Amino acid sequence: MSLVIRVLGARSEWWREHMQSLLPEFECRLWEDPGPLEAVEYAIVWRPPAGGLKQFPNLKAIVSIGAGIDHILADPELPRGVPIIRTTGSDLTERMREYVCLHVLRFHRRLPEHEEAQSLHEWRPGINPPASERKVGIMGLGNLGADAARTLAMIGFDVAGWSRGEKTIEGVATYAGEAGFDAFLARSEILVCLLPLTEATRGILDAALFAKLPKGAFLINCARGQHVVDADLLAALDSGQIAGATLDVFHQEPLPADNPFWSHPKVLVTPHVASLIDPVTGGKMIAANLRRFIAGQDVPDLVDLSKGY
Amino acid sequence: MSLVIRVLGARSEWWREHMQSLLPEFECRLWEDPGPLEAVEYAIVWRPPAGGLKQFPNLKAIVSIGAGIDHILADPELPRGVPIIRTTGSDLTERMREYVCLHVLRFHRRLPEHEEAQSLHEWRPGINPPASERKVGIMGLGNLGADAARTLAMIGFDVAGWSRGEKTIEGVATYAGEAGFDAFLARSEILVCLLPLTEATRGILDAALFAKLPKGAFLINCARGQHVVDADLLAALDSGQIAGATLDVFHQEPLPADNPFWSHPKVLVTPHVASLIDPVTGGKMIAANLRRFIAGQDVPDLVDLSKGY
Repeated sequence: MSLVIRVLGARSEWWREHMQSLLPEFECRLWEDPGPLEAVEYAIVWRPPAGGLKQFPNLKAIVSIGAGIDHILADPELPRGVPIIRTTGSDLTERMREYVCLHVLRFHRRLPEHEEAQSLHEWRPGINPPASERKVGIMGLGNLGADAARTLAMIGFDVAGWSRGEKTIEGVATYAGEAGFDAFLARSEILVCLLPLTEATRGILDAALFAKLPKGAFLINCARGQHVVDADLLAALDSGQIAGATLDVFHQEPLPADNPFWSHPKVLVTPHVASLIDPVTGGKMIAANLRRFIAGQDVPDLVDLSKGY
Repeated sequence: MSLVIRVLGARSEWWREHMQSLLPEFECRLWEDPGPLEAVEYAIVWRPPAGGLKQFPNLKAIVSIGAGIDHILADPELPRGVPIIRTTGSDLTERMREYVCLHVLRFHRRLPEHEEAQSLHEWRPGINPPASERKVGIMGLGNLGADAARTLAMIGFDVAGWSRGEKTIEGVATYAGEAGFDAFLARSEILVCLLPLTEATRGILDAALFAKLPKGAFLINCARGQHVVDADLLAALDSGQIAGATLDVFHQEPLPADNPFWSHPKVLVTPHVASLIDPVTGGKMIAANLRRFIAGQDVPDLVDLSKGY
């Protein structure tokens, strides 16, 4: 009885040992060295290669090291019917809250303009509207989006949220589905994308959407690079329809050194760090979810595959 | 019966008209054109020149256009015994909250390092501690400091506050006076100065204080430039004792173009914008305070001159 772990980067062996200590009843092995394939019951993965998961004939569940599962669904040969468990929890929510608040406040308080003035040694005071007069829009009201919306409202922003289905969040105006989409966009001076990546949301941040925002709106994308039509975003930045963008996620990661976002004066690039799983805390969350799953208990992080996220 | 208004910058006449509309029973005049000096009963001022206020023999109160009154007390010929009324209120508190949250998050999430990596087109991910493991210290727990401390705690930071007298703030560890000073500093990885400027706090941000912070601490000063011993801060930045500083206030404002802070790679300069009074809202707060004062009602913004702030 074993489980395999696939993480990217240098910490694979650290993760393996950590999970082994948390789940001693399993033999925890690395993806590259899985041992007997028929013994593998669980796979804990980030971006599994296409066709990789089907090699394990007795897989009982797949665990995503992250809140999104698009990186698993992207496998065209993904074994059907195997349950998928996401990793959420307060740690990821809190990190995303920090990132969203930082970058909304950065645009709200015009920090790039202050930095430019400093580079010229120019003292350029000027008064901002208060947060209560700044309209922020959050696309996606799952765990992360709902928490970010609530926190921004508590800081004082005029916050609205949009989601596929109706949601209610205290202190936040909510819009839903196609019917509410245009009204939500028309009020969003700072737009934050926290949507899951599905076939319905792929490429949603395109020229048509940008045109529905107020002129000079700001965009923060901390969901997936595939939500953005890059050429449309570059055009909207160059026309001034979008005044600035903070991008944490990209079609290709790491972002290639010759990608135009790196040197665009209106774009801040961060290297997919908005809400990373801390291996210590994340490992514990994964172990706790697996124990509940194995015991047949309710697992809130179990994915509803009919929704696709 | 008149009042005079002294603001700096191009909006003097706008302010005069605004106050005239709010206080029609007075003749509202500009500082430069006060009319009969004995008719002036109230002076609404920002940085009055030395000896300026004593020219009005029948002054009943002085109003500071701001939460601080150091700019009034700096007048060596200030008429004694004339009550001073500050301007506080939720607008100033909310703007300061925004500024403090932005700049604490900026250091916490290492935004300057991400910006440097972007300038080199380098993808450098890395994981931060969560806010719950980041110790923030707020010096000064008046309206502004207490609100900032509460908000940072709500975002998730491990917040402590220090003030002259004992205070209690839910979710915030509080330290008071000399006795609590060193322990407060020893835990402050990000230190925010929101102290009033008094003889006791002038120059408080000096080499001795910096040495008591954890190595590599960050400093945010949004109180007064005179809290800082500039040479000591530059030395602490150069030694690495202070890893970065965000400065909104300076000994001389506007900051002279040849001041070394402008081009220091570890310093962010903002032009005294942390919490500006919005003339519309601020004018209403000033008028409301004056009406209460004239009617003999309790004015919470009335300064206790025995405390000096």
